[in-house]
Amino acid sequence: MGSSQQQLVLPILLLLALAGTALSGVQEVHDVLELTGRAANKLRFSTDVATDKYTPPEEMDPQFWYNLADEEITKRLQLPQPNSQKAKNIILFLGDGMPLTTVAAARILKGQRQGKTGEESSLSFEKFPYTGLSRTYCTNAQVPDSACTATAYLCGVKTNIINIGVSAAVNFNNCTASQDPANRLTSIAEWAQNAGKSTGIVSTTTLTHASPSGAYAKTANRMWECDTDVTSYGVDASTCVDMATQLVTQTPGKNFEVMLGGGMGKFLPSSIVDSHGNPGERSDGVNLLSRWQARHNGGVLVTNRNQLLRLNVSAVSSIIGLFQSSLMNFHLEADDTYQPTLSELTEVTIKKLSQNKNGYFAFIEGGLIDYGNHYTKAGYALDEALEFEKAIQLARDMTDIEDTLIVVTADHGHAVSIAGYPGRGTPILGINQHDTDVNGVKYSVLNYAAGPNQYLDENGQRIPLDGILGSDDAITPSYIPMEQGVHSGEDVGIFASGPQSHLFTGIMQQSTIPHLMAYAACIGSGKQVCDN
Amino acid sequence: MGSSQQQLVLPILLLLALAGTALSGVQEVHDVLELTGRAANKLRFSTDVATDKYTPPEEMDPQFWYNLADEEITKRLQLPQPNSQKAKNIILFLGDGMPLTTVAAARILKGQRQGKTGEESSLSFEKFPYTGLSRTYCTNAQVPDSACTATAYLCGVKTNIINIGVSAAVNFNNCTASQDPANRLTSIAEWAQNAGKSTGIVSTTTLTHASPSGAYAKTANRMWECDTDVTSYGVDASTCVDMATQLVTQTPGKNFEVMLGGGMGKFLPSSIVDSHGNPGERSDGVNLLSRWQARHNGGVLVTNRNQLLRLNVSAVSSIIGLFQSSLMNFHLEADDTYQPTLSELTEVTIKKLSQNKNGYFAFIEGGLIDYGNHYTKAGYALDEALEFEKAIQLARDMTDIEDTLIVVTADHGHAVSIAGYPGRGTPILGINQHDTDVNGVKYSVLNYAAGPNQYLDENGQRIPLDGILGSDDAITPSYIPMEQGVHSGEDVGIFASGPQSHLFTGIMQQSTIPHLMAYAACIGSGKQVCDN
Repeated sequence: MGSSQQQLVLPILLLLALAGTALSGVQEVHDVLELTGRAANKLRFSTDVATDKYTPPEEMDPQFWYNLADEEITKRLQLPQPNSQKAKNIILFLGDGMPLTTVAAARILKGQRQGKTGEESSLSFEKFPYTGLSRTYCTNAQVPDSACTATAYLCGVKTNIINIGVSAAVNFNNCTASQDPANRLTSIAEWAQNAGKSTGIVSTTTLTHASPSGAYAKTANRMWECDTDVTSYGVDASTCVDMATQLVTQTPGKNFEVMLGGGMGKFLPSSIVDSHGNPGERSDGVNLLSRWQARHNGGVLVTNRNQLLRLNVSAVSSIIGLFQSSLMNFHLEADDTYQPTLSELTEVTIKKLSQNKNGYFAFIEGGLIDYGNHYTKAGYALDEALEFEKAIQLARDMTDIEDTLIVVTADHGHAVSIAGYPGRGTPILGINQHDTDVNGVKYSVLNYAAGPNQYLDENGQRIPLDGILGSDDAITPSYIPMEQGVHSGEDVGIFASGPQSHLFTGIMQQSTIPHLMAYAACIGSGKQVCDN
Repeated sequence: MGSSQQQLVLPILLLLALAGTALSGVQEVHDVLELTGRAANKLRFSTDVATDKYTPPEEMDPQFWYNLADEEITKRLQLPQPNSQKAKNIILFLGDGMPLTTVAAARILKGQRQGKTGEESSLSFEKFPYTGLSRTYCTNAQVPDSACTATAYLCGVKTNIINIGVSAAVNFNNCTASQDPANRLTSIAEWAQNAGKSTGIVSTTTLTHASPSGAYAKTANRMWECDTDVTSYGVDASTCVDMATQLVTQTPGKNFEVMLGGGMGKFLPSSIVDSHGNPGERSDGVNLLSRWQARHNGGVLVTNRNQLLRLNVSAVSSIIGLFQSSLMNFHLEADDTYQPTLSELTEVTIKKLSQNKNGYFAFIEGGLIDYGNHYTKAGYALDEALEFEKAIQLARDMTDIEDTLIVVTADHGHAVSIAGYPGRGTPILGINQHDTDVNGVKYSVLNYAAGPNQYLDENGQRIPLDGILGSDDAITPSYIPMEQGVHSGEDVGIFASGPQSHLFTGIMQQSTIPHLMAYAACIGSGKQVCDN
């Protein structure tokens, strides 16, 4: 074993010796590369980097890994052979802005909250037997938003960024084009209703936010959540129907048995103070909640956790829950006696929808994962991802794997990475203890490409992050100074369990997802497993 | 349709109005969030962002997407049902440092080189029917290196960072521990040899680099490529056998029929000038190539493209190819009359190994993808990924899908993202034309967390990148100033085709991959499909 002094001196001599040899053209570039690589390897593989890291003792035995592989293989071999079984029920869980990096980081946080190193942990949906990859680009966008992607994974058609439920023949803010029947799409929620199934949407954002809107809305601008929003974009709200109105008055939204989320303000006129103490946002004077209740005999409005949990779902025909005026609160900041968790929303939804003997389609969104990432508050994004995975576990536990297909996916990524060579068990929200930048400053394990805080001093130099990172609400460092973190364009994961879940593997267009779900449930106009 | 003036003024009024309402505690945070979101949405969804983007005309027709979904479903339905077919041959293609972001970006570059928008393009292995996700952490590392990962995907056991072919009971640089039989692992190459199969390794780095070494070496330090390297770490090279010597003299390396890559210097003493004009790197005076030739009757050494392509593989018993003194050159910089491409290396490998009626195991690495990413020269990384996908296509075309299992994966990610909201067809190596930072400076589509160039002025402010990015060899911007880009810790993709490829789905430990391949080929000591 050499001293670290020897380790530093010898490679430098070697480097100088090699640099002295005659090199030319193409060759030179690569010798420089190799020397750079060697020098940097030396830096990385010095005592600090290579030896000051914890190894769980049980993992030192090769048999540990042989046994784990045997378990993973056995699990695959025990799967039922793909068959012609039909999905009576479909639940689509959508992690908004949940890249595979967030999935891995959330898994680590889950384990670390349990006192473990974390990397060996698993989220509920990571145990699903089949995984695929979803290509998220939209017709006019290399990196998409949540609107065009909702159109893809709910209507089965890619469209332009900002559009919902209409084809790419519709341009931004062009209401007239969005009203042309040729450009209007149907969603899997409508396909399910046409087959006599019950339908519902759940989101931790607003019911009129981009993702859930993909299940019912047709709009040339995702911002048109209420009439005031339409007007704010210079469009006549009396002829261009806002999304809250579409949800309450048009097919398929008006037929939803369950709608749970935030955004109460979008349904109420400014003259009315909502259940949460804020005035409604509508300018047209319409109380859409009264209208909904008039149309839904036996329908019930709930606005807080107690009301929700007290519900006898057998005694009501349909449920609309609006738990905040606008977005629901981050789980970490919510008053948990007031705001239900995503698991509680999921439980009520499945209980209610499963009363239909023809089955159901439910869309359930962890919508604040995206907000956490936009804020570059990685701790919030990961906590929301953990709330999401809990709800999925509950859904799998409450349903029969023989008749209920559960598909978990994301709409798009976020530009975030788990970077460097942190040791096993390094706090995922903390600082990488094993690397420094060229100035000797340690860096964060998680890093965003863009965001509000670069942590630079007045000379533009990175400042030490000790005492800054680590807490759940710390702002994670980023490179490009922007108000918010930005989306990313790599593929996102698809995780499937239940009838026909074996088809959800391979890389696919995001717009294929609802068609595959429809195939499994024998709904819609395409191929169906029942054709066999 | 509103003017952009209206679009800017109204939300500001709305923002001021809402900000004036009484907010407290939890509620306040989220209203700020929503206002931030709304303000930023407004920024993003202004005319610049939402309307100045190209949409391919054919994609405006919803039927385009319905047809595509039908194709993707039909392709899945036409797959043979999982059966008990055995894999005679196994080829493992390893994209070193190839995260799913690099896969997506390479796909886009491929399409753009063909004059298309790019996002709709596909790499050869993206068409494989089954995809899984590989968890890459090592026993003591949240984010791994190429050594411990090679041990996982070739020996089926996770170990400590920097280790190759030995368990996590071995600490960095501890040769004695690496020599304890209890800590030494066998690789799938050895399992294949024990079953009478031929074996080979191919890499665009050196034959003694971390990835290919996983097939044959047992070492407590990946840097010990030759005896001089061992000594440079203060270890006695006369008792601690370097990897080049292991390859030539020990099982299973000495039995490889094919070894193609760079790193000639590791096999020759410093007194000898190699075929590429550089002195050997060995201090022990041993000419390992002479030794190899003495042991391999009918074996042949080739050192350039012509020699390789002239080979009559039927006339030689085994082949060692060493095409550069150290690393092979990037494809973009290589003299293509001198250095073979990865496809050419692959073709010769398959031709030679397929002469064995018992089948073969081949390990083929696109090793410079990682170097391109370390350099933060995204253009190089993507070009190497395209060379990699060409070789995979050739391998699939040259082999029978009924008897040859091809698995494509990566060892670890790199901290790089496709960031922001670039329009469809935006040059993947260029600037995002639709977004700016808070100072009005446009930013790169691709961004690394760490790397050599932050593109800052003397005040630490980001400089405009026009004229800087776009070329294949431009250095992509990064946040943390480091000599090199760094690895990342999210899961990497697994893509499989051929017998038992349906098992390569779901999330799995990276160390399960060789056991699954062994299952399919009925080799090794674990479960085998032939048991059924």
